[in-house]
Amino acid sequence: MADPSGTELLDRLHDIVGAANVWSGDAIPDEYTHDEALTGTAVRPLAVVRPANTAEVAAVVRWAGERGIPLTARGSGTGLSGACIPRADGILCALDRMQRIVEIDLDNHCAVVEAGVTLDQLDEALQPHALVYPVYPGETSASLGGNVATNAGGMRAVKYGVTRHQVLGLEAVLATGEVIRTGGKFVKATTGYDLTQLIIGSEGTLAIVTEAILKLYPRPAHTATVLAPFATLAEVSAAVPRIVNSGVDPLVLEYIDALSMAATTANVGLELGIPDAIKDATSAYLVVVVESHHGDRLEVDAAAVAELLAQLGALDVYMLPPHSAALLLEAREKAFWVAKQNGANDIIDVVVPRASVPEYLATVASIAETHATWVAGAGHAGDGNVHLSVFQRDDAVRKQVMRAILEAGMKLGGAISAEHGIGTAKKEYFLELEDPAKLALMRRVKAAFDPHNILNPGTLLD
Amino acid sequence: MADPSGTELLDRLHDIVGAANVWSGDAIPDEYTHDEALTGTAVRPLAVVRPANTAEVAAVVRWAGERGIPLTARGSGTGLSGACIPRADGILCALDRMQRIVEIDLDNHCAVVEAGVTLDQLDEALQPHALVYPVYPGETSASLGGNVATNAGGMRAVKYGVTRHQVLGLEAVLATGEVIRTGGKFVKATTGYDLTQLIIGSEGTLAIVTEAILKLYPRPAHTATVLAPFATLAEVSAAVPRIVNSGVDPLVLEYIDALSMAATTANVGLELGIPDAIKDATSAYLVVVVESHHGDRLEVDAAAVAELLAQLGALDVYMLPPHSAALLLEAREKAFWVAKQNGANDIIDVVVPRASVPEYLATVASIAETHATWVAGAGHAGDGNVHLSVFQRDDAVRKQVMRAILEAGMKLGGAISAEHGIGTAKKEYFLELEDPAKLALMRRVKAAFDPHNILNPGTLLD
Repeated sequence: MADPSGTELLDRLHDIVGAANVWSGDAIPDEYTHDEALTGTAVRPLAVVRPANTAEVAAVVRWAGERGIPLTARGSGTGLSGACIPRADGILCALDRMQRIVEIDLDNHCAVVEAGVTLDQLDEALQPHALVYPVYPGETSASLGGNVATNAGGMRAVKYGVTRHQVLGLEAVLATGEVIRTGGKFVKATTGYDLTQLIIGSEGTLAIVTEAILKLYPRPAHTATVLAPFATLAEVSAAVPRIVNSGVDPLVLEYIDALSMAATTANVGLELGIPDAIKDATSAYLVVVVESHHGDRLEVDAAAVAELLAQLGALDVYMLPPHSAALLLEAREKAFWVAKQNGANDIIDVVVPRASVPEYLATVASIAETHATWVAGAGHAGDGNVHLSVFQRDDAVRKQVMRAILEAGMKLGGAISAEHGIGTAKKEYFLELEDPAKLALMRRVKAAFDPHNILNPGTLLD
Repeated sequence: MADPSGTELLDRLHDIVGAANVWSGDAIPDEYTHDEALTGTAVRPLAVVRPANTAEVAAVVRWAGERGIPLTARGSGTGLSGACIPRADGILCALDRMQRIVEIDLDNHCAVVEAGVTLDQLDEALQPHALVYPVYPGETSASLGGNVATNAGGMRAVKYGVTRHQVLGLEAVLATGEVIRTGGKFVKATTGYDLTQLIIGSEGTLAIVTEAILKLYPRPAHTATVLAPFATLAEVSAAVPRIVNSGVDPLVLEYIDALSMAATTANVGLELGIPDAIKDATSAYLVVVVESHHGDRLEVDAAAVAELLAQLGALDVYMLPPHSAALLLEAREKAFWVAKQNGANDIIDVVVPRASVPEYLATVASIAETHATWVAGAGHAGDGNVHLSVFQRDDAVRKQVMRAILEAGMKLGGAISAEHGIGTAKKEYFLELEDPAKLALMRRVKAAFDPHNILNPGTLLD
């Protein structure tokens, strides 16, 4: 940078993290200017700084705080809400050098990881111990710091909940530059306000998470996947509580509508062997995955699920071979990329009470028709999380459709985002649709954490 | 009351909830002046008001806010932290008329309950549906609103976590009198700061909870209880991760030291049939409860646990008959009452990483010896929650011992209270031992919710 303030700015950042870990101007790689939000616009920040440890993060935050320079934290940049898009007048604090698995604690069943550790990296480290960190948001190149920031969910939430149910404690840098540790290697605590839970899902606006303590589970050796086509989505939804009541404790309960199934299987070249007559009569598929530490129990459970689904009106029931099952679930996880590739203009990840999914989708179809917009998708039947792609090139119309679809979810007792977050992508809808009393309270909480508004300003709240 | 302000005060409360639901002066029953904290002092408030619904709670809060009158919420008064002891210059808002089970939603597997509904009442309503709300803090006359306020835990936390893992949403009255609804009938949400989680465990200082949405599970039909005496507590602790790794997903993992076992069984007249030679060699017992929807699987799991415990050095292994098992666990749950009856002067419910329990108890023994104080107890081996009774009549010495025992837990990476809460009983230790940066942040959060400090002032923070 040519201007003196720019040079001075870089000099100070160089002092903190070393010149090799500060990028500015054209040296900033494009991928650091955006995340994966379809409606986001890439922004080149004043600089990207890549601290090596918590002390360096704290020094960067203190420095930014003194000068009132906005600071945006970034993990792997796989988010879908635009929450890690930097500001042109700000600094991007990339945590991708903080990739140390600090500890895998076999006695307390937890892992301590730096914010930049990815889900893939953690899973690889856990496999030799036959342990698993069970939150599985699909994009396994995501960082655990990013997962904490967005309270990542995914397909296994019906059994294991979401990130906030599996994070036991955090190390985080406050806007003051102070470093706090919250929670610990334990599940129980009533010792003041739960700062761990408040920071989880706050999308980088309350603190920068540098380390997390994660709960681990023994890794079940056996899984089975049952696929059942149904004539109506209402039957799929009605089957869900029956499967839960059976006690098989399903790992995954997904529905895929017929169109999405066709696109998804075609995309990965997967042939499930479903006769055309059945395909034609199907409007929604239910995928049930069960897991067990015992092969014999798994067989019994999978057979019980299959029998139950047949009783509940499934047009047929298929026990998928492991390879096909893995391919189908992987394809389902990559549905976002298929939507993006097909030119989707926006995405929805509303959550509603799971029994309300059919009613919700009927409303969505009516909204789509009214606005001559194409809306398609799949979702987590077990937890009411509906993923939809919205195809509408006219920005004004798209926003009308988005607002109507989000509002319809809230009217059913749902929420705007199940797992992607509000970020910048859904902010205008959130600020318009959310209860003003709650918004005012959230603004006061934000001010309590970050009075000078330097942490990810403009994300979530204005 | 004779003074005009007192009369006017009562008149207004009468207007809101009806004269029959306002008590003042000597008409206030003693039980409304205290909770079960051993070190708490009963306080007679200006009045006790018993609203019938959320609108009445909101009207009471608005009225109190306008006048700056402190307001303390009370459920069943079974708390152990002194958090619902009213103030002499304040009003006690008792929620024990709000006992409606609003809904048992079989399709979404959740219950909607008013704050005054007790655990017993909910369990009775769920049994016909073969469902269970799995948080089991032992004192089942406790209200669910109180459970939310203290983030109640209990023996089953090793499998099901604590209250905050099972509460999906809340209705709460803010200090402004505004009524908000947080969360909903779903597990996933990343839609702004998680106000549900922030209010849980805040001991009535941030909002008054009037309704909660609770997650339900199918109720396993079969349970088995395995009891294993060990020569050392270190062996008990070492057995815990091995049992977890085996995949039996234990419902309960408790340790009981030899002295507590003797007192507990004597108290309820329970004869477990353990030979004297084994009793004499035992310093700690491990109790493992497993549950299943399948009788045959339970037998296999219980046998596997028994075999594993034998391999791990148990002096013997007993499969307890259902009646004895129920009696032992009930007695264990009532340990607090035995301690109280025996004249305990204070109680500890520190949580430490579970593998650190033996080291922690060795430190506690040394602290006790130094101060000529008797300290005994049991604990949740599966989650590192240690319950101790402190027998020391000299207040100054007791406080020294308490402070040292709590500090030792924090040094091992633990927290002051696992499930009882800080309230007023542990406040002086909390304010002294907790990180000042976190305390300052909590004070700012409190001010963000309750700028005029009317909700339970003096509890948790000053």
